[in-house]
Amino acid sequence: MADYSVYLNRWAKARKLMEKAGIGSLLLVPTTALFYLTAQKGQINDRLSCFLLTASEAFFICPGFEKPRVNKDLLLNSQSFVHSDGDDSCKMLADLIAEKGGSGLTAVDTRIWGGFLLSLQQRLPKQGWVDAAQIITPLRMQKDEEEYCLLKEAQRRAGLGLAEFYKWGLEGRSEKEAALKFTEFLTQAGLEKSDWGPIVASGPHSAIPHWSAGDRVIQKGDAVVLDFGGVYYGYQADMTRTPFIGKASEEFKEIHAVVLAANEAAFKAVKAGAPCESVDAAARAVITKAGYGAFFTHRLGHGIGLDEHEDPYMVAGNKQPLAPGMSFSDEPGIYLPEKFGIRIEDILFLKEKEPERLTDFHHDLTELD
Amino acid sequence: MADYSVYLNRWAKARKLMEKAGIGSLLLVPTTALFYLTAQKGQINDRLSCFLLTASEAFFICPGFEKPRVNKDLLLNSQSFVHSDGDDSCKMLADLIAEKGGSGLTAVDTRIWGGFLLSLQQRLPKQGWVDAAQIITPLRMQKDEEEYCLLKEAQRRAGLGLAEFYKWGLEGRSEKEAALKFTEFLTQAGLEKSDWGPIVASGPHSAIPHWSAGDRVIQKGDAVVLDFGGVYYGYQADMTRTPFIGKASEEFKEIHAVVLAANEAAFKAVKAGAPCESVDAAARAVITKAGYGAFFTHRLGHGIGLDEHEDPYMVAGNKQPLAPGMSFSDEPGIYLPEKFGIRIEDILFLKEKEPERLTDFHHDLTELD
Repeated sequence: MADYSVYLNRWAKARKLMEKAGIGSLLLVPTTALFYLTAQKGQINDRLSCFLLTASEAFFICPGFEKPRVNKDLLLNSQSFVHSDGDDSCKMLADLIAEKGGSGLTAVDTRIWGGFLLSLQQRLPKQGWVDAAQIITPLRMQKDEEEYCLLKEAQRRAGLGLAEFYKWGLEGRSEKEAALKFTEFLTQAGLEKSDWGPIVASGPHSAIPHWSAGDRVIQKGDAVVLDFGGVYYGYQADMTRTPFIGKASEEFKEIHAVVLAANEAAFKAVKAGAPCESVDAAARAVITKAGYGAFFTHRLGHGIGLDEHEDPYMVAGNKQPLAPGMSFSDEPGIYLPEKFGIRIEDILFLKEKEPERLTDFHHDLTELD
Repeated sequence: MADYSVYLNRWAKARKLMEKAGIGSLLLVPTTALFYLTAQKGQINDRLSCFLLTASEAFFICPGFEKPRVNKDLLLNSQSFVHSDGDDSCKMLADLIAEKGGSGLTAVDTRIWGGFLLSLQQRLPKQGWVDAAQIITPLRMQKDEEEYCLLKEAQRRAGLGLAEFYKWGLEGRSEKEAALKFTEFLTQAGLEKSDWGPIVASGPHSAIPHWSAGDRVIQKGDAVVLDFGGVYYGYQADMTRTPFIGKASEEFKEIHAVVLAANEAAFKAVKAGAPCESVDAAARAVITKAGYGAFFTHRLGHGIGLDEHEDPYMVAGNKQPLAPGMSFSDEPGIYLPEKFGIRIEDILFLKEKEPERLTDFHHDLTELD
């Protein structure tokens, strides 16, 4: 990223929300929230790295020997402190919050380790703590043009990987073997490995929505739920297709048509201003009407961006209105226990008023030899 | 794992520690702590799965559609509750803690999401919360015979991967290309990919302890820090070697000898009853005496087991006495900024009074063509 102004603009937006909520400081650890706000990558571990944003200042704390890996723009735009192994880095942070944190309220990264939060609470017993989601989520839900492009490219590349996987052939492979090869094709398509999947769930396993990949050998007559993705410059791909090995049975065809109709109904229900739950309801109505309501056992979809699952969720009870810049999955499924399951997942993006399907891979019924 | 009694014994031990500390319930989410106590795998995500252990009962909560993936023994030995997307699963858990939690004190998984902990705190304002590390860590630090075997086998397989990697040849490869191939060799050696590394840090990059792998092409005259591992039945491998490409310089040879002597000194300092910090100090004394004290910028080592980094830490200030069953890294390093760095890491295990080196790959000076 050549231009850091994107990130400084996000700081400004976060500060506005903080001011409104009476939050004096925002504490982020190495998660996608930190990456979103600072372009700094990393993983939470036993050595403290964190970013503290206040109304007028910004601070970065990390182990001294990690400093060469901190991005230069972040260091330029914040005051940095380092600690050595054996130092009390939690005290260093607590003192900083006490001195610079402004109001008595700190918003903490949703995914900060609970054990670490408990230490902070113990050191600053008068401080109030809230989930930083209230600051970060509204910003992240509104994707900008660059994020749109990266998400679209991520979905396109997932499709390229799937095309190669289909050509390679599934029959006679174990699920695990197929999943490994699938990962290879997705990597060749330019995606980094995500920390889940791919799901290769064949035959009766396809009726378990989150089956991963086991020793079962894929055979003629199987439905195979393929749920997969990868990461493109930080942004997640996520797609599900359910091909049939050999000539599809009538029952498979019928249910595939129902799931596809549900997927389409959800797509059509996406409109700026409509509540998220209405998109779930649109798909569910189709499945229920066809008599399979009890077998659609999960929500319709989840937001997607730097995280595979993030706000907004397309789920009953979620009144959040759809708004431009939102990106989320449309993934109805029907699962007949011990028999088979079918799920069809596309990623949608709401640019203005109407949705766009970022997933460009066809979702017609597919019979593989 | 055929026999669940191993896990039930761990429940019994945890309950004893809970009783002693006045803790009424222990809450674990899908982390290595959950796996340790229940054999249940999983990752924390936006849908709640958790285990609650009380003085006399055990509960498991998960999404309904995930239940087929919960291990049968855990279901047999606990009462399970399921929730659907859209349900208030946090309330379900809070009610359970309120009703069944015993004392007003709950120990929570160190790695539970902070945002989720804040929700629980809000729902149960009178409940006290402490880090479950005080229950789990003492148990996990004392590895049993099976854990010892798995750790040993993990380290052995990492060595097999390294041998193949050396044969393949490093000169002329980019660090990233080398890291990918290295991962392949480690996979072929029977290790699952860990969620870090491998670190392939060549030439001046080797002076940055946690450099990952970049576009630099490995060339004659380079020191190459290789820090790598993988997972064997849940248990982590972790090893570092620093080969030289071509004929090693005198300076490299000298520093390699110092680091190796520090590694040996630490090994000799490991004795049941000695404080962890003394092992760090033994290595540090060697490096300081040789005049490189300022360039050994991190602690000597970390515990290892189901997590790559876990207690006990070999670090200044840690008075924890070494005890049978402990497993940890011995990884001194010297890093000359902009020039090169050398780190040599083995995994040690304290069986009775004396340590055993689980890493069986030699750590002599290695010159690669």
